[in-house]
This record gives sequence, structure tokens and C-alpha cells, in this order.
Amino acid sequence: MDNMQRVGISVEDGLLKKFDKLIDKQGYANRSEAIRDLIRDRLMREQLEEPASNAIAAIFVVYDHHSTQLTQKLTELQHSQFLKTISSMHIHIGHHDCLEVILLKGKVGEIKKMADRIIALKGVKLGKVNLIATE
Amino acid sequence: MDNMQRVGISVEDGLLKKFDKLIDKQGYANRSEAIRDLIRDRLMREQLEEPASNAIAAIFVVYDHHSTQLTQKLTELQHSQFLKTISSMHIHIGHHDCLEVILLKGKVGEIKKMADRIIALKGVKLGKVNLIATE
Amino acid sequence: MDNMQRVGISVEDGLLKKFDKLIDKQGYANRSEAIRDLIRDRLMREQLEEPASNAIAAIFVVYDHHSTQLTQKLTELQHSQFLKTISSMHIHIGHHDCLEVILLKGKVGEIKKMADRIIALKGVKLGKVNLIATE
Amino acid sequence: MDNMQRVGISVEDGLLKKFDKLIDKQGYANRSEAIRDLIRDRLMREQLEEPASNAIAAIFVVYDHHSTQLTQKLTELQHSQFLKTISSMHIHIGHHDCLEVILLKGKVGEIKKMADRIIALKGVKLGKVNLIATE
Repeated sequence: MDNMQRVGISVEDGLLKKFDKLIDKQGYANRSEAIRDLIRDRLMREQLEEPASNAIAAIFVVYDHHSTQLTQKLTELQHSQFLKTISSMHIHIGHHDCLEVILLKGKVGEIKKMADRIIALKGVKLGKVNLIATE
Repeated sequence: MDNMQRVGISVEDGLLKKFDKLIDKQGYANRSEAIRDLIRDRLMREQLEEPASNAIAAIFVVYDHHSTQLTQKLTELQHSQFLKTISSMHIHIGHHDCLEVILLKGKVGEIKKMADRIIALKGVKLGKVNLIATE
Repeated sequence: MDNMQRVGISVEDGLLKKFDKLIDKQGYANRSEAIRDLIRDRLMREQLEEPASNAIAAIFVVYDHHSTQLTQKLTELQHSQFLKTISSMHIHIGHHDCLEVILLKGKVGEIKKMADRIIALKGVKLGKVNLIATE
Repeated sequence: MDNMQRVGISVEDGLLKKFDKLIDKQGYANRSEAIRDLIRDRLMREQLEEPASNAIAAIFVVYDHHSTQLTQKLTELQHSQFLKTISSMHIHIGHHDCLEVILLKGKVGEIKKMADRIIALKGVKLGKVNLIATE
């Protein structure tokens, strides 16, 4: 595990008070924890701008389960040569609608292309992709 | 299932050409499909601005599995009185790190509060929440 | 001017190295400056979630200057009772197209409603709103 | 000016009703107008993902006008060889704080780099960049 380093920073009184109030509301145990989260989030956003970065993604798809062949096409797309599907979850959210959450690993650029193709499939009503950068 | 209605719209030549090129790249079968997706996405974004709207959310959490008590706290938080956890997935993404994807149902406002509290937990390194509006 | 307070935080070695590399690339003079910016940005995003918060907004509008009555309607909308237009800039960006940047002050919720109405005007091709929280 | 083309699309009854309600609230004159806006917005988002695309940007900067040399540094940065500043607006928003809105033209990638450098300047408290794709 990484060694911790002690860093001193200076912050305006007023800014610090507001920040303390916010992180208290969120439930943080201390400022270090909260500031580390801000730093990690900033680095992650930087990394996700880069199409060649590694990421884990969750693609959400809401679809009508009566759509013929959709399930098969979804499965085929998941067997892309550029991406590695980790797992998927399937949830019934209404009479006709299912939600499928597909977790996969790959380059940011390839994941976005894949997400576009999945959302474009006939029968898919809503799609969204969420990325988390990995090292 | 909903009846389909036929709608006529007028679009500039140049705009239509660019749109056709984009949706072809994405793999859409036809324009209707692509335009319906734009409409659904627009409605969903509108709905998610409203804290009282119903939504399904996936909360992503990357955490160090050596963190004592984190798993227990995560479980406790999921048993909130305002939200209903649907399911969760757990994935090992490195020597120390795990990714947990928690699917839950509830009001947009409650989900965001819950996500804030989860991300603030000691040991959680990265957190992100993704929302999909439901009817 | 606000007094500065000295705060000590602990950060993992590896995380700190990556952060130092990023802020060096961005041109920050030191870590305090960069971390203060992360804190301000976090607080601002929190504030902008709240419809009743005060904000300054820039609404960008690309429109065809041949559109009859558009200029007049834009002007009328800017004289809303809930918002205060500060100033606007007008730029020619092509044969037919103009870009208008309208700066205004008001509550987040009112600004969003106004932006929706402006973007919906006949002749407006593209619209975007950008918010900055004020105290 | 571009010729208009007539396009027929089919949309589910329920979806259409919700869409009509939304665009009526926003003030759209008709569906064509609203759908064209969705198409333009989608194309613009696609274009802005590409660092080599042309864009117009507004960089917002809130800064303390007591900061020595900041104004000069802001001016120097605006005279980059890769970007063309179109104009800028300056607004007093408090005892110490000014808001500067800088409009510039250039490639998406160059604009983002410039925005990073401006936000990193000592004395700059908040910064945000907003992009609009141009042809």
C-alpha cells in the first residue's frame, strides 16, 4: 500500500468554512479524505478525456424485451475484439421494459464506439455509458 | 404496446446529410429510430433535473477492500428507508481495489444524497452515480 | 480580504505524484492554488444544483440574422422581471449566422427557464447556457 | 440558404405526448423546430469530442482584481499563436471580484489547453469553458 505524505496548503477562511460545511453534510470523516477525493476525481476526468486510456465502463440499456433478436445482437456486440465484458445484470423494470447493465473493460475510445452501437440497436429505448478510469 | 404515430418534420438539406452520416456510423437502422432516441434522451434529462422524479441509479464505488468496516457500512447505507436497492455487483480490479456497482430505485434527490454519503465513506477512492429516469 | 488558514492534509505518494504532474502541465504555481480551485469548483457545482441559488449566466445563441423578429424577441425576453441582463456581445460567424452571448444575473431556476425559451425561438440554431455561482 | 427537406418519422403515442408537452413549455412554435434543435445539438456534441474540430469558446474567469500582473498575464495568454481572441467582456461582480468573459476561436484541443492555463493563473478563483462547434 502507498505511503501517506503530509502536505500543507493555505486556504481562505471563508472558503474553508463553506467546504467544512459541505463535507460534513456529505458525511466525510475529515478534510484529508475529502480533498483526496477531489484530487482523484480531477485526475480521473483528465484520464477519461484520452481515448487511449484504460477504463471500466457500465453501459445501461433500457429495452423492450419483445424486440426480436435484440438479446442476441447485444451478446454479439459484447464479444468485440477490442473490449472485454466483465459481467452483466438484467432487471425487469416494467411490463415491457428491461434494464441491462453491462460492465466492460477497454480503451475509452473503443468503449464509446461500442456504447454508440448498442444505443443504436432497434428496440433499445435509452442508453447511457458511465466510465471509471483505471490505472 | 404503444401505437406508433406518423409525424412529418422539415429539416435543412445540409443538416440532414450530416445527421444521416452520424447515425449511419452509430449503426442506426433508420432516422425514426435515431430521432426517437434523441427525444427520449431529452425527456430523460428534463426528468432527472427534478429531485422528486423516479429514477433507477447505479452507484459505482472503487474501494480498498482492506478498509475495515467499509463493507458493513456500505450494506447499512443500502438499507435506507427512502431507497430500494435492487442488486449489486462486485468486481476485483487490482491488488487492493474492488469495484462495486449498486443498483437502486428511488427519487432523484434521495439517490444523490445517498451517493454523496457513499462516496464520503473512509476507504472509498472513487465514486460516481449514473441515473436513468423511469416512469 | 479573507485571511489564509494553514491546513495539513495527508495524501498517498502515488496520488500526489500524479497530481503534481497534472498541475505542472496546467501551469499552477503551487499545490495550494490547485487545491483551492478544486474546492471552489466543488462548492460551485453544489450551489448550481439549487434552483434558488444566485448565479451569473452566459447564454450563447447561434442564429440566422435573416430571421424576422428574432432580434426583437431576444430583446423582449431579456427584459424579464426575474432576471437582470448585464450585457451582451454580438459576433458574426458566417454568411448567415451570428453568435450572441448574453450575460445575466438571477436565480439558477429562472435562468434555466429563460435559456429554454431563448433556445426555442424560431431562427435560433444552437443554444447553450453556462452558469457561474455567485455569493 | 439551405433547402428544407420533408422527413417522415414514426413515434410512439405516449412519447410524442410527453415531447409535445415539454416543447410547449419551452415555447417552441412546432415540432420540426424542436427536433431540428435536438439534431443540431447532437451533431455539435459529436464534433466537440474531436480535438481537431473548429469551435468558438467562451472562457469565464472570476478573479480578484487586486492580483498583481494577472491582467497582463491574461492578455499575454490571449495572444497565443494557436487561437484567435475575438473579444472580451469585463464585469464587476463584487468588492474584489471581476468576471471576464473571453471569446475565442480555434481547435477544440487548443482551446481546452488554453482554458487550463488561464484557470491555473494565480488570482483566478473560478474558471469555466464553454464550447460551440462551428463549421
